[in-house]
Amino acid sequence: MTAAITLQDCQALDRDDPLAPFRDRFDLPDGVIYLDGNSLGVLPKATRARLQQVVAQEWGTDLIRSWNAHGWITLPQRVGALIAGVIGAEPDEVVAADSTSVNLFKLIAAAVRMRPGRRVILSEPGNFPTDLYMVQGLAELLGGQVELRLVERDRIADALTDEVALLLLTHVHYKTGAIHDMRGLTERAHAAGALTLWDLSHSAGALELSLSADGADLAVGCGYKYLNGGPGAPAFLYVAKRHQDAVRQPLSGWMGHAAPFAFTDAYEPAPGMARQLCGTPSILALSALEEGVRVMADAHMGAVRAKSRRMGDLFLALVEQRLPGTFGIACPRDSARRGSQVSLTHGEGYAIVQALIARGVVGDFRAPDVLRFGFTPLYLRHTDVWYAVDNLAAVMAGQEYTERRFRDRAVVT
Amino acid sequence: MTAAITLQDCQALDRDDPLAPFRDRFDLPDGVIYLDGNSLGVLPKATRARLQQVVAQEWGTDLIRSWNAHGWITLPQRVGALIAGVIGAEPDEVVAADSTSVNLFKLIAAAVRMRPGRRVILSEPGNFPTDLYMVQGLAELLGGQVELRLVERDRIADALTDEVALLLLTHVHYKTGAIHDMRGLTERAHAAGALTLWDLSHSAGALELSLSADGADLAVGCGYKYLNGGPGAPAFLYVAKRHQDAVRQPLSGWMGHAAPFAFTDAYEPAPGMARQLCGTPSILALSALEEGVRVMADAHMGAVRAKSRRMGDLFLALVEQRLPGTFGIACPRDSARRGSQVSLTHGEGYAIVQALIARGVVGDFRAPDVLRFGFTPLYLRHTDVWYAVDNLAAVMAGQEYTERRFRDRAVVT
Repeated sequence: MTAAITLQDCQALDRDDPLAPFRDRFDLPDGVIYLDGNSLGVLPKATRARLQQVVAQEWGTDLIRSWNAHGWITLPQRVGALIAGVIGAEPDEVVAADSTSVNLFKLIAAAVRMRPGRRVILSEPGNFPTDLYMVQGLAELLGGQVELRLVERDRIADALTDEVALLLLTHVHYKTGAIHDMRGLTERAHAAGALTLWDLSHSAGALELSLSADGADLAVGCGYKYLNGGPGAPAFLYVAKRHQDAVRQPLSGWMGHAAPFAFTDAYEPAPGMARQLCGTPSILALSALEEGVRVMADAHMGAVRAKSRRMGDLFLALVEQRLPGTFGIACPRDSARRGSQVSLTHGEGYAIVQALIARGVVGDFRAPDVLRFGFTPLYLRHTDVWYAVDNLAAVMAGQEYTERRFRDRAVVT
Repeated sequence: MTAAITLQDCQALDRDDPLAPFRDRFDLPDGVIYLDGNSLGVLPKATRARLQQVVAQEWGTDLIRSWNAHGWITLPQRVGALIAGVIGAEPDEVVAADSTSVNLFKLIAAAVRMRPGRRVILSEPGNFPTDLYMVQGLAELLGGQVELRLVERDRIADALTDEVALLLLTHVHYKTGAIHDMRGLTERAHAAGALTLWDLSHSAGALELSLSADGADLAVGCGYKYLNGGPGAPAFLYVAKRHQDAVRQPLSGWMGHAAPFAFTDAYEPAPGMARQLCGTPSILALSALEEGVRVMADAHMGAVRAKSRRMGDLFLALVEQRLPGTFGIACPRDSARRGSQVSLTHGEGYAIVQALIARGVVGDFRAPDVLRFGFTPLYLRHTDVWYAVDNLAAVMAGQEYTERRFRDRAVVT
């Protein structure tokens, strides 16, 4: 039998933590243990100053000339290059633009065209809703030319038939935290003649990714979770270099034109990743995202992943130590197969999350019964994990959740 | 013969200007006469404070709970309702979301579905490029089901045949400032069984619009020009109430779902305008836009339009007085048919604009030979118009533009 984990053990882990200095680069609210960075990342200190600069100087004073003078026009590429470093891609394989949903549409539509004669988009039931919804929107638009086919995750490899144009998966599941085998499934997809489109919303900035080495064809991801880009931050797209000039995405806006300022009537896609752009991007939003990604880009992703696994394991061990048999476990126990979150289940899950929030421990709830706790290695300490479980134990001991059953549900993304 | 216009005349107009107090609500750079608010509007003072609040308090401190506590989740509708007041629509007929380009795609695709059996999208050559490009992207995606047909503006009414699903026009032309007759063309389109989609990018906040009274079906517009929402601000969409539940737009992201937080696999569009939303919107960008629109919403649009016409007429009269025969005129002379800009032509147009910018008079250039000067009645004075032309006269007298011919072209949108 293992010895019980103590607060002192957690303090020792913090002392040895090579990522500990990063915490000081964020503005963290007092009295809060924030385990929801997988939904909305916290505010980097540099972002405040950057936004003041962009607002007062670039917009307020330099106005229209900032498109050149402050490089606004290349900001999607600059931020994309920074993100590329975080996900194991080449700098010119990523741009920041639009929302994850819009980017999904671009790349799903492009993929269908790249595999003529194949009509199936393969995914799994319970994938993040917008991933499925965007396929449905395209399928409805194209009539019978596209079919969304959902199979359970353990049957995906077998479902990769010659009807499949695209395998569309969220790499880390938003609810369970389970990780798909990117390299293995990509190989299977390629063997079947299909392309892969990975949604990295719960992976980028949390896991050590190697998109290039894993052979990924296409990817999208979210800027406001582990990349700390701010609420509703722009998303990103990745297209492997070998595909870039074959991809024709249908949202052919002027920012994706080969010569946007020639103002011609006929669309001609820009070379490389620029054709993935559509309309004029928000410079405030992209600037904030750049600062968030910059902090992440300074960290060694191997160290981030190691700490993430350690924190998840610590949380699970403390829950089992303090509250044995109280919760179901909806995430993989093996941290190698788990993203940077732990998912528990409980019939009173919603009310328990609310009671925890009242105590300053912020996680979130996913219907019907999942309590999600996200671990963001750049700004959380091992002692935060200790106190989070300590508060959870107090909530359960005092049944503090019983009065919270009927409060309004928090909107969390 | 009319008496020459004097600086004193302009000063008198400023003294009598009912909109003069609005100038103090903006941060204007020193030493600049900014005639490019039709490309990028200036910074409202309230926006600085609002962004500090959103960043430090809402994002930094309240974090995920701000989706409810600070109403982030309804921000697209709140900003939309404000914009509705500026364009003569009902509060629940407008939402702020995505970019103009993305919104064009949504509504063009929706319109095609609402007119089965008709395949033509009718527009004009030289329309703002992204409007045409988005049709081309859709047409390429749908194969032969959509055809973009371009006819010169004086032939549009005749070209409204029973093949036409949608008439797609930019209400005020970005280059010439010429205004289309919204009511007349909408009537003609309806008589032919077609829908109308108006791009209001150069109209919203500049003209007195009556979308409801004019019978407009669909519209989009830009947030970063006359609405002063900041560089790359979110755009907006309008759908007349009678169409809202028939419109199925293909970018069916989770924010447009009837129950986004039920996390179901099947898309079901929200009632009303919410189905026009797609992914998670940038809260920083939408908050800035809200402040910009708020200033505009406080102004009487009739007074805005009257001053805009007066300033344009004044500029043209001063150019003819000071520089007779020097420039061609690419905009309508009749201010009733002209948006809030004046367009001159000159073979050295690019270099002249650059020389003016060097003197602090900021207009912009559009290939091949158009000098654009935008008049934003909330923060410009009649004396600014005087000094702008005074500088233009000095540039021409001293041939200051000759050395500027080969500088890098400014990127202006």
